[in-house]
Amino acid sequence: MSVRPILAPDPQVSLRPTSEAVAALVELLRGRLGDRVTTSVSDRHTHGHDESWHPGHPPDAVCYALSTDEVSFILSAARDARVPVIPYGAGSSLEGHVAALHGGISVDLSRMDKIVKVRAEDLDVTVQAGVTRQQLNIALRDTGLFFPVDPGAEATLGGMAATRASGTNAVRYGTMRENVISLTVVLSDGRVVRTASRARKSSSGYDLTRLFIGSEGTLGIITEVTLRLYGIPEAVSAAVCSFPDTEAAIRTAIETIQCGVPVARMEFLDDVAMRAVRDFTGMTHACTPTLFFEFHGSDGGVAEQAETVQALAVGNGGSGWHWAKDADERAALWRARHEFHYAMLAQRPGARIWGTDACVPISALAECIGETRQDTQGVSFPAAALGHVGDGNFHMSFLIDPEDPAELAQARELNERLIQRTLRLGGTCSGEHGIGMGKSKYLPAEHGVTAVDLMRGLKALLDPEGILNPGKVLPPL
Amino acid sequence: MSVRPILAPDPQVSLRPTSEAVAALVELLRGRLGDRVTTSVSDRHTHGHDESWHPGHPPDAVCYALSTDEVSFILSAARDARVPVIPYGAGSSLEGHVAALHGGISVDLSRMDKIVKVRAEDLDVTVQAGVTRQQLNIALRDTGLFFPVDPGAEATLGGMAATRASGTNAVRYGTMRENVISLTVVLSDGRVVRTASRARKSSSGYDLTRLFIGSEGTLGIITEVTLRLYGIPEAVSAAVCSFPDTEAAIRTAIETIQCGVPVARMEFLDDVAMRAVRDFTGMTHACTPTLFFEFHGSDGGVAEQAETVQALAVGNGGSGWHWAKDADERAALWRARHEFHYAMLAQRPGARIWGTDACVPISALAECIGETRQDTQGVSFPAAALGHVGDGNFHMSFLIDPEDPAELAQARELNERLIQRTLRLGGTCSGEHGIGMGKSKYLPAEHGVTAVDLMRGLKALLDPEGILNPGKVLPPL
Repeated sequence: MSVRPILAPDPQVSLRPTSEAVAALVELLRGRLGDRVTTSVSDRHTHGHDESWHPGHPPDAVCYALSTDEVSFILSAARDARVPVIPYGAGSSLEGHVAALHGGISVDLSRMDKIVKVRAEDLDVTVQAGVTRQQLNIALRDTGLFFPVDPGAEATLGGMAATRASGTNAVRYGTMRENVISLTVVLSDGRVVRTASRARKSSSGYDLTRLFIGSEGTLGIITEVTLRLYGIPEAVSAAVCSFPDTEAAIRTAIETIQCGVPVARMEFLDDVAMRAVRDFTGMTHACTPTLFFEFHGSDGGVAEQAETVQALAVGNGGSGWHWAKDADERAALWRARHEFHYAMLAQRPGARIWGTDACVPISALAECIGETRQDTQGVSFPAAALGHVGDGNFHMSFLIDPEDPAELAQARELNERLIQRTLRLGGTCSGEHGIGMGKSKYLPAEHGVTAVDLMRGLKALLDPEGILNPGKVLPPL
Repeated sequence: MSVRPILAPDPQVSLRPTSEAVAALVELLRGRLGDRVTTSVSDRHTHGHDESWHPGHPPDAVCYALSTDEVSFILSAARDARVPVIPYGAGSSLEGHVAALHGGISVDLSRMDKIVKVRAEDLDVTVQAGVTRQQLNIALRDTGLFFPVDPGAEATLGGMAATRASGTNAVRYGTMRENVISLTVVLSDGRVVRTASRARKSSSGYDLTRLFIGSEGTLGIITEVTLRLYGIPEAVSAAVCSFPDTEAAIRTAIETIQCGVPVARMEFLDDVAMRAVRDFTGMTHACTPTLFFEFHGSDGGVAEQAETVQALAVGNGGSGWHWAKDADERAALWRARHEFHYAMLAQRPGARIWGTDACVPISALAECIGETRQDTQGVSFPAAALGHVGDGNFHMSFLIDPEDPAELAQARELNERLIQRTLRLGGTCSGEHGIGMGKSKYLPAEHGVTAVDLMRGLKALLDPEGILNPGKVLPPL
């Protein structure tokens, strides 16, 4: 059988632009954006790293864009100059997505923060890419509607689309993949595409929307997002339940999914995570493996769901089932989960979190978490397990000193073994954090050489000069 | 701003292969597939048309493939010979998808009908592309699970993925876009890609799954499909309700969605459609605009949903609310909806149905249906409206004599005006039937020139020789 390898992007991609090329481009951009183009050390430093352990790589300059037209102008000029462009939202990503590995221009979209149109009657909204999820939900307050995707961080909606984000509510409402109706995207040559109409479903042409969701700024820059909205449920209740061991908690989560209970959230924290949260927040839950639940629906529906889940929990030895019915109690309960990240960091000042992101078919979750926790026994740094277990997704949080090569090497090795385990169990190396610079080397093992070759073809088609966030998603050739 | 048009596919695409090239290819394929390669007139005739009014275009030969390996062999050989290849499932498509516009080989996948693996514990299943949706649901009978996407026709799951099909259950369970987890696809050069792992969510690399869903055999041939499954609901009930006029029925549908009632099905039939069904099935419902509902959930949940919807219906003048609670009654009730197609055809022997497929944001549905029905007043052939109104999707069924140029011209004009109206209201020209040969000319108006150019780029990347179902999806240059 004849095989035709798909062309890789222009090898120029890996060449850092000359300082002359950058200076000329900066001057050109200033002609249009004025002092919204900056080369200050602090701006460059801030825009070169995200919230992860990955080392920062500052861009040569930062542009604060205010409109799709400006992004188009920037990309067109950058392409002519062959200078890399890296989109930046809130900087909350976790796989080094914003690092300017080859220098270039960081395009900060955070000032594109207009809610363009709320269409309550269609249950949709159009926002500029820099609007954050909390900003959106605050703006929706009087409509009775909300946007459910919640990755924890105060991320921008453009960034969440670009990384195919999800989080605690995905088990019920889906991820960004399911909740984006349409995008406005600027292509590498400055042309602007609207990827779809506002119809809820369509079989008209190739799915350009999903082509850009999860492409991490490597195929185009998202400047506007149209999203699905949902009615705020008539009733919401939350509960927390302690288990004698991890297996019992995970078994409860698996049975909940297999019984078809439409839980809105189902979060697992192991004993290490619970201890960190207790020390940080002063909460009084037992420091044993724990599930946090949230139920959405009518009064009757919520009660039914909770009853079913409680029975499953009890059957697995769960105890201390604690309810939170009103909004304040719920907020207190979820605070424990939401502050985990900072609770963990507080345990070891100066340390950073290396977060893994395995996602497996639900029946393999107990095995995957169990083997992984075994694997981390006796490591020299704190390691907690937590996750969105309803999706088969969990994170190990390794609290490492990023300056310590031995800890980095150990974390890298544990992550590597976890990813091999995940792929063996039919899962993915990244449930929701994306690939960035941290995971591109695992793409061939997960997708196969032909699929990665096809992804390279898509990259070459959409970014022939290789200026869009180079060094991300695709592994080096 | 500089603009770089993306390359179009090789113009060879529009060249019909010589009879020598076809004969040589047929001989080569027979060496491997034996008498599963046929050039009989009846086989060729059957494979050149679908269930629509579109004229048939028989292929030069038909291959019955049994495995992904065989499809790979066929594509590799056809590419070397520059002979078009058109995938064929059940032939139930509606926009001329299977017509061999430039001759070539029809690859019939219907004998690839193995259910590869049911994984009840993960709520997923892998099937070969030729398995039909009813065949799958029969096989699932003892598992307590089902696959919800139901386009009405007994389509193959490969064909449903290839056309991004949906149907009556989509309002609750989504379309093929949301329900396919992973695909096995043969590329135009014979290489085989698995598009994703079995994880429920992933942010690992570009979304190859969605790239092929809805690509109608123009980017690759789908040979295996991994699908989400759902627990059969504890309670199911159905109801039918008559309305004084179309506006009242549609208003009820809109309010049901806006209230967030998770209806499993919500189907509209206008007075013309109801009359056709009554004449055909002998059912006794009033021949006025009607909504058919189905509710899935727990006993309590189903009762709650029905109560809410019934109140909305009554508020809009609905009457004759009729319940069907057990399976037999439900089947009888839905028979009226499901037999619409044949009921309509029975009204005019020899006629064919031209089905439109508008889908608009839900708030625009009343206006879109209203203007469209106005537009069809006084046409010379029967015209009925029905649809999946919960998604904003409806069909006009024009019962035309396909041999009568005047009727064809009138239907074409009505369809054209409907599509312009749909696009003006923010909708799509195809909610679920796909583009095929019938709607490619509307792509630029719906998506814009740049988006269509990008789609041409995807086609050129994946099918540089233009052998995959040429003449479909993309408009002629």
